[in-house]
Amino acid sequence: MKIIHIGILGYGVVGAGVAKLLKTKKQLLESRIGTVLNLKTIADIDTKTDRGVDLGTTRLVLDANEIINDPGIDIIIETIGGKTIARQFILNALENKKHVVTANKALLASFGNDLVKAARKNQVDLAFEASCGGCMPIIKALRESLVANDIKSMSAILNGTCNYILTKISREGSNFEDALRSAQELGYAEAEPSLDIDGFDTAHKLAILNSLAHGMEINLKDIHVEGIRNITPVDIEFARSFGYTIKLLAIGKIHENYVEARVHPTMISGSNPLSYVDSSMNAIVIDADATGQTMLYGHGAGMMPTASAVLSDIADIARNIISGSKRRLPILGYPEDNIKPLPILSMEELYTKYYLRFEAQDHPGVLSKISGILGENNISIKSVHQKGRKSNGKVPIVMITHIAKEEWVQKALKQILKTDSVVGDPVVIRIEETDQE
Amino acid sequence: MKIIHIGILGYGVVGAGVAKLLKTKKQLLESRIGTVLNLKTIADIDTKTDRGVDLGTTRLVLDANEIINDPGIDIIIETIGGKTIARQFILNALENKKHVVTANKALLASFGNDLVKAARKNQVDLAFEASCGGCMPIIKALRESLVANDIKSMSAILNGTCNYILTKISREGSNFEDALRSAQELGYAEAEPSLDIDGFDTAHKLAILNSLAHGMEINLKDIHVEGIRNITPVDIEFARSFGYTIKLLAIGKIHENYVEARVHPTMISGSNPLSYVDSSMNAIVIDADATGQTMLYGHGAGMMPTASAVLSDIADIARNIISGSKRRLPILGYPEDNIKPLPILSMEELYTKYYLRFEAQDHPGVLSKISGILGENNISIKSVHQKGRKSNGKVPIVMITHIAKEEWVQKALKQILKTDSVVGDPVVIRIEETDQE
Repeated sequence: MKIIHIGILGYGVVGAGVAKLLKTKKQLLESRIGTVLNLKTIADIDTKTDRGVDLGTTRLVLDANEIINDPGIDIIIETIGGKTIARQFILNALENKKHVVTANKALLASFGNDLVKAARKNQVDLAFEASCGGCMPIIKALRESLVANDIKSMSAILNGTCNYILTKISREGSNFEDALRSAQELGYAEAEPSLDIDGFDTAHKLAILNSLAHGMEINLKDIHVEGIRNITPVDIEFARSFGYTIKLLAIGKIHENYVEARVHPTMISGSNPLSYVDSSMNAIVIDADATGQTMLYGHGAGMMPTASAVLSDIADIARNIISGSKRRLPILGYPEDNIKPLPILSMEELYTKYYLRFEAQDHPGVLSKISGILGENNISIKSVHQKGRKSNGKVPIVMITHIAKEEWVQKALKQILKTDSVVGDPVVIRIEETDQE
Repeated sequence: MKIIHIGILGYGVVGAGVAKLLKTKKQLLESRIGTVLNLKTIADIDTKTDRGVDLGTTRLVLDANEIINDPGIDIIIETIGGKTIARQFILNALENKKHVVTANKALLASFGNDLVKAARKNQVDLAFEASCGGCMPIIKALRESLVANDIKSMSAILNGTCNYILTKISREGSNFEDALRSAQELGYAEAEPSLDIDGFDTAHKLAILNSLAHGMEINLKDIHVEGIRNITPVDIEFARSFGYTIKLLAIGKIHENYVEARVHPTMISGSNPLSYVDSSMNAIVIDADATGQTMLYGHGAGMMPTASAVLSDIADIARNIISGSKRRLPILGYPEDNIKPLPILSMEELYTKYYLRFEAQDHPGVLSKISGILGENNISIKSVHQKGRKSNGKVPIVMITHIAKEEWVQKALKQILKTDSVVGDPVVIRIEETDQE
């Protein structure tokens, strides 16, 4: 039986999860793949911390080059994270003709096109199922299952930290800071949570998924990104009264010559299956022309779900090796020569519905002034709620608009701010409706 | 560019869907797969009906052997259905070293082990993503994505007809016959609906999924099957009052040396994501040891969703052909030599919770008699609802039990029937609870 030798770069949570599966599922993997997957070497700058995995004959070394330059190693797993050293290690590994598996979405979103080129040049595989949606087989669905479909749209909850926080605010009426603290205590959020809660992690994943869905180069920089710091229990309560839930969504849609790609808090109704996805769970709804709407749901992060996705990549590559098939699947779903540049729609050009909340002065005529300015800017109002005066003498005015252009909305809001009818910045949350609405 | 030639046996709804995708998505498929997929010939005993597909140079012939014996054809798609002629055609095609793609779950469930042997003997691929769950990538998830997981359990809604009917009864209080008629009018149910509504179609799919999940031979005959003919608005209403929804579920669970495999109407609570799967949609929840709970959701049937799944198989095989990899994946997820026989638990041995509804005589002591017999049989009652007398002088008594053994329940029900306290057969619906309950 052929032995396939594996090296892991980075022995943190995910690296240890991968090691654990390779060790504890040795027999299952051999039985399924028909080959031995031997975890030969792990490299980490910390070789002291016990990760709770019985490593047996596997070597734990300090120097990554002992793996990258080992001619006996076939597949290298990068579980270091970040965009500096991980990038160089992967490039060196590809240069040495190693197949590489990574879960590093930040790296792929920023430098994925270069990594794909390097893998192609060296005729090896680069796999990253674990980079988007943890154990949900999103990459496989887009690259393989939906091969005969044009993907019309994707909308997804791809960050468990944000979804946990929004669920907590929604269920318990906590404010954002308390919900974040709870997420940190439970280990869902990092001490430095910006990557998650400001939407960047979600945008990294969307950049990758867009590329796979539409055969376009990975493009992170043009994705509009807003996080969830400003979501308040008040807006969640208003949303509920209109039949909406607030989720941080990654939205990708194809148009004639461009794509929409945006990450922001979004109101969705109960007819959207994402509205039932709570706590730290992730899900993606894909609307494709042959399949119609499909959804994948699962744990988007965590040691073992992420490791499971890494193992599915390892198994795919191992099966390629033993069946003598090289680079069987193009890395981004399309052969590199067929990947086309597709521009991302600038946010001002977006048409959607809006939830607007103003803190208005309690003067006569304020509602008329606000709605007048909206009307002058082509924005038509679907419904208005005005609630009784608050203790500070201000009145919250909440409006749901019909479909309007983002540019008009931003212009109208600036004009409204100038009138002194309102206090502070208005809250703007976009509404995403399903075809049935 | 290499050309891969394809033949379709059976030009009905699904066959026409496959032809339509091969024709209309020609450019997309070439762009993604890097090869030409040429639909060379279609065979059907009806060559007159216009299926609305522009066939171009594709030949439409009467004789399937023109495809099966054509040395120029690489992949044969079987979309005839049924277990007689389709079986012989597939065996002949495999014998002629053709790769075969089929959506035929009835055939696979009954004769799949033989077909797998024939494919192995002839060193060709046999693929069937479309056989279970339409366009949901269930087969791919089990064979590839979850490769490093032990699958603990699967529960699934796999028949759109049944789910449509149950949703209609639930939402509108229709009786079963009216809901079935509505399903037939909408094209969800066949004129002869038994295969769907008596649960057999669901059982076919479960037999296939069990094999893939646990590396066991396909075993249809030992699966316990009940359909939905006896589900009434009354039971759905009672279910709702206890917080449950009734779905026709396929349930597969692994135990030490055996599996549970059963298809029957099942009460599930709102904490089970399947409870939100309505109308003709399908979904599967897979609980695996590394990933935890994941769910796939989508259209389980229909022309284009099914054709999309067939195309994903065609693309996989085409990619194998052009990358020079033969039989890259074992057909049932495990190499044939590693597939173990695993017995299915006999139904009497099942432990679960039960919903029981009796039409009781309105006499003093009846409730005490029923609950006494249940108690003597070790069945402990969690809650009881007894509603006021009906016009016929009978009282409905509804009970939810704690976990009990099926054998005990069946024995107790026989004893209760003998007492003349109840009229007609009691309604028994099993309750499936999630880990959180």
